[in-house]
Amino acid sequence: MSTTTQPVPFLKGHGTENDFVIIPDPEGRLDLTPAAVARICDRRAGVGGDGVLRVVRSAAEPAARALAGEAEWFMDYRNADGSVAEMCGNGVRVFAHYLRHAGLVKDGTAAGGAGEWLPVATRAGVRRVRFAEGGDVVVDMGAARLPAGPEPAVTVAVGERSWPALQVDMGNPHAVAFVGDLGDAGRLFDPPAVAPATAFPAGVNVEFVVDRGPRHVALRVHERGSGETRSCGTGACAVAVAAARRGGLDPARDGEPAVHTVDVPGGRLVVTEFPNGTITLTGPAVLVAEGTLEPALLG
Amino acid sequence: MSTTTQPVPFLKGHGTENDFVIIPDPEGRLDLTPAAVARICDRRAGVGGDGVLRVVRSAAEPAARALAGEAEWFMDYRNADGSVAEMCGNGVRVFAHYLRHAGLVKDGTAAGGAGEWLPVATRAGVRRVRFAEGGDVVVDMGAARLPAGPEPAVTVAVGERSWPALQVDMGNPHAVAFVGDLGDAGRLFDPPAVAPATAFPAGVNVEFVVDRGPRHVALRVHERGSGETRSCGTGACAVAVAAARRGGLDPARDGEPAVHTVDVPGGRLVVTEFPNGTITLTGPAVLVAEGTLEPALLG
Repeated sequence: MSTTTQPVPFLKGHGTENDFVIIPDPEGRLDLTPAAVARICDRRAGVGGDGVLRVVRSAAEPAARALAGEAEWFMDYRNADGSVAEMCGNGVRVFAHYLRHAGLVKDGTAAGGAGEWLPVATRAGVRRVRFAEGGDVVVDMGAARLPAGPEPAVTVAVGERSWPALQVDMGNPHAVAFVGDLGDAGRLFDPPAVAPATAFPAGVNVEFVVDRGPRHVALRVHERGSGETRSCGTGACAVAVAAARRGGLDPARDGEPAVHTVDVPGGRLVVTEFPNGTITLTGPAVLVAEGTLEPALLG
Repeated sequence: MSTTTQPVPFLKGHGTENDFVIIPDPEGRLDLTPAAVARICDRRAGVGGDGVLRVVRSAAEPAARALAGEAEWFMDYRNADGSVAEMCGNGVRVFAHYLRHAGLVKDGTAAGGAGEWLPVATRAGVRRVRFAEGGDVVVDMGAARLPAGPEPAVTVAVGERSWPALQVDMGNPHAVAFVGDLGDAGRLFDPPAVAPATAFPAGVNVEFVVDRGPRHVALRVHERGSGETRSCGTGACAVAVAAARRGGLDPARDGEPAVHTVDVPGGRLVVTEFPNGTITLTGPAVLVAEGTLEPALLG
């Protein structure tokens, strides 16, 4: 690992407008520092993105070597500020789409054929992805955790108005509030007030939700640390779980999946909650450009 | 001109973080629609930028053919929303930097050598650019127009506070207010209030300025239609003219240039006002990536 002097290949892509700079580095030769990630993700001085997806063989990455037997590829996900993140639902969908685009997994084989699951190593463990008809990418997001007993009521407030909210944990914390109109959330420049303040000591992602039709909702989201975003994979899952419970659905009890269409500002996702608790997130993944980065960005 | 099916070459670059997608199209073969520009400039679903700089030979572009004898290259500048713009001070600096990067003008020749002026055709006519020592790019921005007589006083207000402002026209209108601290301008999500409302019927760019030292100021700017931006070339010029007058300088009267360093949020510019009224804007131009756009972005 040394200072980069050659142009570095990259692609840019997005899933429902959650956007990423993809950096292929199969043999793990790149020393991608937090400062370099921040420069690359800067929307004006760099390429711009919500994060970087470095694509590296699990066997070539110390952090993922233990998973190499299960998953050939490791998603080295970094936030736009250069910090490390464990997982990103839209990110892993774009990551898998890139693998297929680059011919690194083949349609019709066990490693990523239509209908078959492709394992992807992440810092949160192995995640399974599959390619659906029509180009959509499906990721298994695991199960939600809901308040077990008589949890303290949570409320979300914007200005003078407040709404009761459901706590849903998707590995990260969410507070889901059904509102009359998505405009009720205001401009969302600042985090909505959540009470009691002790409910989420590490902060919380807040979703505002309206009904669009049967098993069809739309959301706006304020992501902790990021502000309002165009899409949030775990947020869409949390909202679908909340919408199911509100509609009297419980897949574990009903013995059948609950399927919700979830419109986010950047597009449309479909969330399926299965009787065993597993939740899948389905949606588009798009590549818009590819090329090389100036070495100076890498530092 | 037909629907694009081949990947289209592009570069991304910026001047003091005023950022652009550069599209080389020397023979004018590309049908770059407003919708395509908006898709390309979308910061999440596209590449992202404040605008597009299409690089086309003046002789190959109907809008510029009359200028082909004066300037080989035409800067087809488009705003991020797809609309057409006449000129952009940082844009033309990045445009010229690209021409040199691509070998389309040569150092040491009349067409772009160090110290010599390179003519660039724009919708506002021919603009002259030159490459300075150290890699900076200089553009001749023309002259400022100041209120001739006893103009009505203009004030700029944010919240409860207001400041007197100087009107400066650089081809577009500016109101320049000297403040105690750049934080006084608040978050600048919305346009500052300018009174009287009749002073700028087509809206105005508002600059907030503080002193940093002798002939050295720093600004924040709210661009009409865009909100707060990281840099504004005409804004830096307007601020330098206002700072000169405030400091008792008048190049036409003094017979010597007034040189001001103007710090913008995205970097540092130098503005020189000459005795004949001409103003030059000097600063860095940077390319950060190059490659190809997916044909779907072009539509």
